[in-house]
Amino acid sequence: MTTSPDTTGQDTTGAYVTAGQEFTRDTNYITTRITADGRDGYPVEPGRYRLVVSRACPWANRASIVRRLLGLEDALSLGVCGPTHDRRSWTFDLDPGGVDPVLGIPRLQDAYLARFPGYERGITVPAIVDVATGQVVTNDYAQMTLDLSTQWRAHHREGAPDLYPEALRPEIDEIVTVLFRDVNNGVYRCGFAGNQTSYERAFARLFRRLDELSERLARQRYLVGDTITEADVRFFTTLARFDAVYHGHFKCNRSKLTEMPVLWAYARDLFQTPGFGDTIDFDHIKRHYYVVQTDLNPTRIVPVGPDPSGWLTPHGREALGGRPFGDGTPPGPPRQAEVVPVEHSAAGWPAA
Amino acid sequence: MTTSPDTTGQDTTGAYVTAGQEFTRDTNYITTRITADGRDGYPVEPGRYRLVVSRACPWANRASIVRRLLGLEDALSLGVCGPTHDRRSWTFDLDPGGVDPVLGIPRLQDAYLARFPGYERGITVPAIVDVATGQVVTNDYAQMTLDLSTQWRAHHREGAPDLYPEALRPEIDEIVTVLFRDVNNGVYRCGFAGNQTSYERAFARLFRRLDELSERLARQRYLVGDTITEADVRFFTTLARFDAVYHGHFKCNRSKLTEMPVLWAYARDLFQTPGFGDTIDFDHIKRHYYVVQTDLNPTRIVPVGPDPSGWLTPHGREALGGRPFGDGTPPGPPRQAEVVPVEHSAAGWPAA
Repeated sequence: MTTSPDTTGQDTTGAYVTAGQEFTRDTNYITTRITADGRDGYPVEPGRYRLVVSRACPWANRASIVRRLLGLEDALSLGVCGPTHDRRSWTFDLDPGGVDPVLGIPRLQDAYLARFPGYERGITVPAIVDVATGQVVTNDYAQMTLDLSTQWRAHHREGAPDLYPEALRPEIDEIVTVLFRDVNNGVYRCGFAGNQTSYERAFARLFRRLDELSERLARQRYLVGDTITEADVRFFTTLARFDAVYHGHFKCNRSKLTEMPVLWAYARDLFQTPGFGDTIDFDHIKRHYYVVQTDLNPTRIVPVGPDPSGWLTPHGREALGGRPFGDGTPPGPPRQAEVVPVEHSAAGWPAA
Repeated sequence: MTTSPDTTGQDTTGAYVTAGQEFTRDTNYITTRITADGRDGYPVEPGRYRLVVSRACPWANRASIVRRLLGLEDALSLGVCGPTHDRRSWTFDLDPGGVDPVLGIPRLQDAYLARFPGYERGITVPAIVDVATGQVVTNDYAQMTLDLSTQWRAHHREGAPDLYPEALRPEIDEIVTVLFRDVNNGVYRCGFAGNQTSYERAFARLFRRLDELSERLARQRYLVGDTITEADVRFFTTLARFDAVYHGHFKCNRSKLTEMPVLWAYARDLFQTPGFGDTIDFDHIKRHYYVVQTDLNPTRIVPVGPDPSGWLTPHGREALGGRPFGDGTPPGPPRQAEVVPVEHSAAGWPAA
């Protein structure tokens, strides 16, 4: 039995924080890939697979954004788990009868066990499930979005951007490595630190990196070049949760995102770009972290704030130039069934 | 055995939050008064009493500010408890040997028990102790500061302000009543709420009141008239803790104080006034709440942020006119022994 936390950050005892220990993420995922050539036995095939996410989860959010940007909605259907999972599994409690309408299962765990009986690691999102067999194919979130960009190309919408262009891969790979270590996972290293020293070390690294990224983004519209790439998707999903959760719950509180002018403008720019902000559900985000992680928030009370309406204010980043979608075009609006309820969106917060 | 929380908010089981319950503060204090005429057996007498505070506690902070503003340092000595008390008592762990040098006791509880053997209610600060007998006289913080203003007048410094002027008492009394309910105690009603509904109700009342006070303070420099009064002292001690503790730890997070421009300028104006900011120890404030209230923060990890250096920036409130000390003058600098260490002050935060 492992006590390494999984993607959710939870270890197998249900705890997120191990007293005295720094937080170390278990990065062992199911590495089976869905590829154009089907080399792992799972060829790209429209309608064959189902992407399962939670709108709460930043790692899953990468996949839901990339799927939107590339227009893969018809090729790859979407299952959405509720924000509060139990100790062992995300569940389909938002669906009628608590069962995913396509997979016919109440718990994501069922898809993991269908492929690996006795599966012991974390039941994480995002996961892609083979619909016919009901078996999970992969939960390797880092490879997943790259494969959506490179392996599913035949099924991209017309005008889909190239989020992982060959020429820029070295630069993207380099920046997402430090982004992961200091920012995406860095906020978890703050929040799940089991001692003051580990927390303070993660805190210093996080804000040093944010300051450095802020300098970079003061001069250019996107992280790599003047067009949206995979790197921006990965930065965005952490920034979208920063003030809602990481600032208070994870104690990433040198300053709010709203107090870092360049990053705040950059994040709003992306948020207001079709395919980004329309995947964000602040209600799910807050309820997930504050209700599930009871070793950080035993009362399970979910904060009313912050007021997210600022996400919709002008960002002024057009002045930096840039072509958000390169030679491509923005995606259309989300499918009706996938629209985030307005009361969970940046427009829906009731003033106190 | 009572389960009503005391001034610290803790009930006799050591818990701050009672599941399912709203937070109700036990407002039964030792109401003995120290008066000029000695009607309760404790006449005002310079050098006879010791004021015991913690720099963490907002209720005690009122007394330490008023003592400074009125120049009562020689007449009423000061004992300072460490920021983290145990389940039953604040302790003198900052003093050599862990014993208050004047009272000769390690725990404030000893002074309570000296007067009331078997005392069952909370051992709270501020408390005033009769040095000769070692007995606590009062812990009634609301009456205490008014008595410092009105009963100790013979021992005020030259130029001491009138913080509770006769003509303004009805207005001051009215405003401090709503201040207590919605703000001073309102933040605790958010933080110690045992259910979502109580929290949300307290949250709405808090920010509605802050918005109203902001409108008032947009037009006038101080809460009542154009001179500092008891009402400003009471508002200030909550505002000084707002971003450091209440925003994250108590989930008072519609916005930070730094995001409420009028209140932030008002709070900085007071902070920069001698007798206010020089009583503030951000280290003690954060360590107290985050280390002691383990039912809210089981990890006991203390946030590094927020960056408090903004407290020292220009506030521009002079433009509203006003005479901070009325016909009086500002107090001089604090006594050497009472100076807050620079690394605990607004000037001492290390940039991440």
